[in-house]
This record gives sequence, C-alpha cells and structure tokens, in this order.
Amino acid sequence: MSNKRRRIGVVAPASRMSAEVAQRVPTLAGSLYPERTPEIVFHPQCFASHGHFAGDDEMRARAFLDIANDESFDAVWLARGGYGSCRVAQAVMCSLTEPSRRKAYVGYSDGGALLAALYRAGFEAVAHGPMAQDILRDDGEAAVARALAWMVERSPEALEPTVTRVNKTAAFNITVLSQILGTPLQPDLDGHVLMLEEVGEAMYRIDRSLFHITSNAGIRRVSGVMLGRCSTITPNDPDFGMNEEEIARYWCRRSDIAWLGRADIGHDANNKIVPFGASGTIQVTPR
Amino acid sequence: MSNKRRRIGVVAPASRMSAEVAQRVPTLAGSLYPERTPEIVFHPQCFASHGHFAGDDEMRARAFLDIANDESFDAVWLARGGYGSCRVAQAVMCSLTEPSRRKAYVGYSDGGALLAALYRAGFEAVAHGPMAQDILRDDGEAAVARALAWMVERSPEALEPTVTRVNKTAAFNITVLSQILGTPLQPDLDGHVLMLEEVGEAMYRIDRSLFHITSNAGIRRVSGVMLGRCSTITPNDPDFGMNEEEIARYWCRRSDIAWLGRADIGHDANNKIVPFGASGTIQVTPR
Repeated sequence: MSNKRRRIGVVAPASRMSAEVAQRVPTLAGSLYPERTPEIVFHPQCFASHGHFAGDDEMRARAFLDIANDESFDAVWLARGGYGSCRVAQAVMCSLTEPSRRKAYVGYSDGGALLAALYRAGFEAVAHGPMAQDILRDDGEAAVARALAWMVERSPEALEPTVTRVNKTAAFNITVLSQILGTPLQPDLDGHVLMLEEVGEAMYRIDRSLFHITSNAGIRRVSGVMLGRCSTITPNDPDFGMNEEEIARYWCRRSDIAWLGRADIGHDANNKIVPFGASGTIQVTPR
Repeated sequence: MSNKRRRIGVVAPASRMSAEVAQRVPTLAGSLYPERTPEIVFHPQCFASHGHFAGDDEMRARAFLDIANDESFDAVWLARGGYGSCRVAQAVMCSLTEPSRRKAYVGYSDGGALLAALYRAGFEAVAHGPMAQDILRDDGEAAVARALAWMVERSPEALEPTVTRVNKTAAFNITVLSQILGTPLQPDLDGHVLMLEEVGEAMYRIDRSLFHITSNAGIRRVSGVMLGRCSTITPNDPDFGMNEEEIARYWCRRSDIAWLGRADIGHDANNKIVPFGASGTIQVTPR
C-alpha cells in the first residue's frame, strides 16, 4: 500500500448516529495509526433527523453520493444500521459515478440492502463489517479497529477466518436478506459461502426468514450457509422447540444447501469482516 | 345450493387451537343453522403440541391432507394462525388428490402461505377469512358466523365490499406475503386488487415489508393495493413519522402501483371474506 493518508467518509443511510461516535472514532484512529492517521470525515447528514431516519430519503441518498462520488475518499463507511437503507438504494445506484467504483464500502445489518446493490452492480470492495456506531458497544473499540484495519490496509487479521479458505463469500443479517429477495437489490450469490446473523428476533421469525431465504432459487445456488451469532433473541411463546443452529440445519437440509457450520459474525464487538465476492481480489487502491 | 348438510373440517397447520373453540363453534353453527346445521369436524391434530406448533410438520401436513383429500368434506377451515404453514405447504401440495379441488379453503394470516400455494395451483374456492379461533375475540361470533356463511352458502354479505366490484382479488397479511415472495409459494397476482393487513409489527417493519412487496416484479402487476387494518402496532423508537396509510401510499407511488384506499380486513372480528381470484366464479359445489 502507499504511504498516503487514507480518507474515510461516514454516512448514515438508515438511522441517526450518536454525536459521541464522531469524537471517539477519530481519537481511536489516531491512537491506532499515529503516523498516518486516517482522516475520518463524518458527513453532517449523520446527525440529521427525520422521523425514524437520519434525514429524509433525499438527504440520505445525497450524502451517500457526496462521499461515494468524491475521488478523495478511499472508503464509504456506514455510520450505523437501524432501518432505512432500502429506501435510498435505488436513488443511490442511479447516480453513482466512476470514482465510486474505486473505493471500499463497509457496513452490515440494515446496510446490507446497499451492500447487496453495490455488489450486484459489480463493485469490487464491498464488505460486511463493523460500523462507526459499534464503538459504543462493550469492547466496541475492537470492532471499530477491525473495520479500520480493513479499510486502511485490507488487514487479513480483520477477516472472518473462513474467508481466505473459500472461493467467494457474502454476509447478511437474516431479516435484511429476506427483505431484498425478489427485488432489484437481490445479488447473485451463486457459489458463495453465505454467512447469516440475526439480532432481536423471536425464534419463529428466524425460522420463517430462513424458510424464505432457503426457498429462493437464487439462494439455492450458494455453495453453503454458515450461521453467525443470533443475539438478543426475543421470547417465543410457547418455546419454539429448536435453537437457531437447529433451525438453520433444518432449512439447509430441506433445501439441499450445504450446512457449513458457524461463522464469526454478529451484532457484537467480535463481528468480523466478510468481503463480498472473492476476497483475494480485493486490494487497497494505490494512490 | 343443495339441501345437504355441509361438512367442514378444521385443521391447524400452524399453532395449536384452544380447546374451547371446539365447544363454542359448533354451538354457534347450530344456532345459526338450526335446520341444516353444518357438521364441523375438528381434526384431533388441532389440539396436538410440538414446540411452537400444533404437532410436528408431518402431523400437520397429514391432518390437512386427511380433510382436503376426503370427498365427504366441503371445506378445509384453518383453525388459527400463529406460525407454521410455510413449513408444511410443500408436503401438502405434493399429496393433494382430486377431491381436494372440489372444496373451499378459508383462513388468513400465517395461513396465507397455504392459501397462496393452493391458489397458485389453480384451486378455485380459496378465501381469506376468519378462522375458528377467532370466536375467542371480542365479538368473535360475528367473525365465525361470516366464515360459516361463506363456507355454507357463499353468502355475498360475508364478502369485503370491494370484491364484487372488481375483476380479481387476493388478501394477505403483509409479513406473510413478504415471506413467500420469490419462493415456489408466490402466486400470480397479475390484475388482482391486493388487500393487505398487519398485526403486531412496528411501523418500520411495515415500511420495510411494503418496500419488499412493492419492489417485487410480480406484485407490480397487481391492479392496485388496498390497505386493511394494521392493529396492535408495536412502539417505534423514534416515532416513525408516517402512519400505515401514509406508508402504503408512499410505496404505491414509488412502485407505480395504484393506491385503491382502505380494505375491510384485519386481525379482528370485522375481518371480511376475500376470495382469491374472480369471486363471481366461486360457487358452492352441488352435492
């Protein structure tokens, strides 16, 4: 990689980012990279508010494009999840320009709707990984450090361990993937190891979403499914009778999709980087 | 219609039915139809229990087939919703025999997965409508009376008022329809007025599901969308900023689907019958 200082732009296509994040993340970046501290630019839109969202649809799409289409940025980093990316994906995809192809995109959860659209459009450095707001989690600095390590230097240590051993990978929140199936955002995951994680859903909903995902003809062409962590599972009345791994194995078996075990991803500080596609081809763009 | 006594078989492809229902519904049927009281047969499977479900997948599928493939029954009536129909739909559809085509199927909510599959397979008397367990609601007898009126004599008074004025109709719970999109259960709704209702979801989830539904190429061929009642909406933090009708109008506008106003359906005692397809063609099979 070059010695140039990296520039990372943060945007919030879904929910509003906490102001504290904009203080803590640059401080952490300074301590991790004292010599070539990456410049982390928080788009003002991150702090905007419009009902559920960090600004209205137009403002969120425009902010994403401000960073994505600006040649001076090396990465578009999603501020946080929540909900709202699917509302802006179409407007974003219609207005991306050439510089947008020469940078990385990192996020997860709700942001999966945008990552899917970018990957589908042939973007080469799209990755599931921690977001800026993850610094507020317990041990959240480790999560943010991992995202920075990938954005700044494509550090192999930041990767989910399976990634380097298989041909192609992709990672999604279960509900978010379910909600883009059959839409223009659904990516071609033929031959990919598909890693799935969930947070804050009841077991019957996880089961229903996995019915939906594994019943999709496109998804059935994945090379296999791995299950990340399913955290903060809400009560199921009566007890569902299966845990999340039993559910995932059940639907893999029914759909003739290979069950490949557990993945080291989830809504937590240990959430690892999973590039979309063949990770061996993803390099830092020389500057 | 003939003077023969109608026979209605109740099965529970999802969650377990309350025992009280099997007492109250036949009593109501006797008071409504003192001369030719329909015989309501509760399959023993309705009372079975297996984790979340009214018996395991095999038992639930078998029970559905017991009634559907039995020439002596005029209707298969779903006991209740909950969750589980998507798990048995494939096994059911693979084993239906000729007598199954000569009867009515009534249910809603989770049962939409089975109704969709039946309608897709060309079954002619499939309807969204109240289920046996609805008798436990406030004013629930009115709901059950309505379902009986349609199953026994195809009473026009039981229908959602729009039904007789348009060419073809279909009705679904929003989440349930979302979860069958892109699967082999998704029906062809080309030219249908699509009525949608919801219960127990946060506003951002309703928005996300309507993104999903209205972004689907097949759904975009409906003649329009009507919104039923969205009840017991769970809290949205922060306030979403739009109500359910504003959300439905928003997604109709974005997807170029005609917004046709409100539908008289929902998870309540006023839930009306919406036949799948052209209701004018649905007659009681002479016996």
